[in-house]
Amino acid sequence: MVRNLDVIAMGNAIVDVIAAVDDDFLLTHNIAKGVMTLIDEYRANHIYNAFSERLEMAGGSAANTMAGLASLGARGMFVGKVKADRLGESFATSLKDIGVHYATPFADDGPPTASCLIAVAPDGQRSMNTHLGAARELSPADIKKADIAAAEILYIEGYLWDAHSAKAASRKAIASAKESATKVAFTLSDPFCVGRYREEFLELLENDLDIVFANEDEATALFEVETFDEVLQHMGRWGGIAALTRSKKGCVVVRGPEVHVIDAAAVERVVDTTGAGDQFAAGFLYGMVRGKNLGDCGRLGALAAGEIISHYGARPEISLALLAADAALL
Amino acid sequence: MVRNLDVIAMGNAIVDVIAAVDDDFLLTHNIAKGVMTLIDEYRANHIYNAFSERLEMAGGSAANTMAGLASLGARGMFVGKVKADRLGESFATSLKDIGVHYATPFADDGPPTASCLIAVAPDGQRSMNTHLGAARELSPADIKKADIAAAEILYIEGYLWDAHSAKAASRKAIASAKESATKVAFTLSDPFCVGRYREEFLELLENDLDIVFANEDEATALFEVETFDEVLQHMGRWGGIAALTRSKKGCVVVRGPEVHVIDAAAVERVVDTTGAGDQFAAGFLYGMVRGKNLGDCGRLGALAAGEIISHYGARPEISLALLAADAALL
Repeated sequence: MVRNLDVIAMGNAIVDVIAAVDDDFLLTHNIAKGVMTLIDEYRANHIYNAFSERLEMAGGSAANTMAGLASLGARGMFVGKVKADRLGESFATSLKDIGVHYATPFADDGPPTASCLIAVAPDGQRSMNTHLGAARELSPADIKKADIAAAEILYIEGYLWDAHSAKAASRKAIASAKESATKVAFTLSDPFCVGRYREEFLELLENDLDIVFANEDEATALFEVETFDEVLQHMGRWGGIAALTRSKKGCVVVRGPEVHVIDAAAVERVVDTTGAGDQFAAGFLYGMVRGKNLGDCGRLGALAAGEIISHYGARPEISLALLAADAALL
Repeated sequence: MVRNLDVIAMGNAIVDVIAAVDDDFLLTHNIAKGVMTLIDEYRANHIYNAFSERLEMAGGSAANTMAGLASLGARGMFVGKVKADRLGESFATSLKDIGVHYATPFADDGPPTASCLIAVAPDGQRSMNTHLGAARELSPADIKKADIAAAEILYIEGYLWDAHSAKAASRKAIASAKESATKVAFTLSDPFCVGRYREEFLELLENDLDIVFANEDEATALFEVETFDEVLQHMGRWGGIAALTRSKKGCVVVRGPEVHVIDAAAVERVVDTTGAGDQFAAGFLYGMVRGKNLGDCGRLGALAAGEIISHYGARPEISLALLAADAALL
């Protein structure tokens, strides 16, 4: 089979709208500090209009991962729904500009392109208010079997389970991947997301996934255990590839009895940890599609995560390919 | 076979002599700040006499481990050489008072009991000056086969390789252990010690050891590798039980394909990390002789190490058995 793509990713297509605010702003607008909250269109408009000096950047977890993969030199495609509006155009352009294929048809009506309104307080804490809008409308019709078959790996974000239609699209993609022997990778996305869909995620793990990404909070939530070591034992028995991230403690990569314990990359100053998990996945997946051993996949993940936390913003600022070459990981 | 002992340990029998000094003192007496240096008797006397307000505490790596095992309620014996002098009596009393069997005959002549002269600078850094003295004279005649056979585990510190006679005693003990199916545990002691005896330690690992203790610096020195993950792969291939400590990063326990990644115990304030490795070994060995699984052995080690770093001094101040019971690890 000819694989023209390294990775095809599915996720919520979101534009981040960032503004500096003071604590009064958070109180006045009833924004919970430091967490991610799903909001409706009315509230999204309200907060958007209250922001002054907005900075807009294409975002979304899996889309950010594809940006990282592009920076490493991988051939990627993104599947996710925007509306034919200004933010939707901006999202599409951000991917095309860096060489990520993006061909999901724009929605012509319905809710606007998804936005994540990020209020940054004086102490640096980020309060995220996400309106999923058009992203929820991703549907099985948007999944092309030929695209899945063209890729080595299908990568799906767990956040898609929050919308019925997007989940159905994910299920169709997984079925297609099995037909074409495309490997299926999945990120648990968020501990609250795991809480909402724990049983379904466990079934996915058992029946459908080849590779799973999880941070410590997500993984302990999945298995309902207290310690990282219990997660490790569960994943070892599972037998697939688990890439488990632990913030400053680095990562642990498991495939049955094979275990790698890898330190976090040395970073001079941690500026903003947003998107560290997304870029870890980018580095790791890049290692996989280039046939690296699991240890080097983990080291590539750590390298990419280290770049992203050393500056603001969730997409790489410098070439990850050059960084990886410097670290002798290419 | 009836085992009347849980652990029999062999090590340098040392009394710590601690004094607060200023930086001028270190300069005047040519003491290298923050490291351990082996010194001769003349220099030991010189520094000892220059100390004012000396605090004396029985020490020694393996002896400290036995103090931890006693605090956990294990039945232990210590084998190590002192002279029949004041420090020697003090060392023997310190072990007998906590219920550790100690029956190695005192040396009647030769160098004095070993001392470690510890100069504590105003910034808290400890400069250790060790005069091995009588400890070097431990000999094969001091090893009783019946005592080895009575123990579940023989525990040896790598520091003994620094003296020809003490090393010969260790070799005899290992041979006895094999005859009586007593498990052999060994600590690499110190990265410089590993540097001095690397080939011999690798041979021990291959032929004689069931359990090895090493911190990250010691283990990377042993295998001459750069990263912890490489150590992990080496130890996995070896197949015995490796308990690898990583300071704040916790520990990793390996036996062939079985790997446990365990966090360091939460400690309110780290006061003095001296002896953390010794107490980790105490907790781990206690788990082994009580038939705990490897994960719980590591957790017991982390618990004991956490107690010791929360105060000055290298022997437990509160009952490790009570701590372990509180943590539901007994």
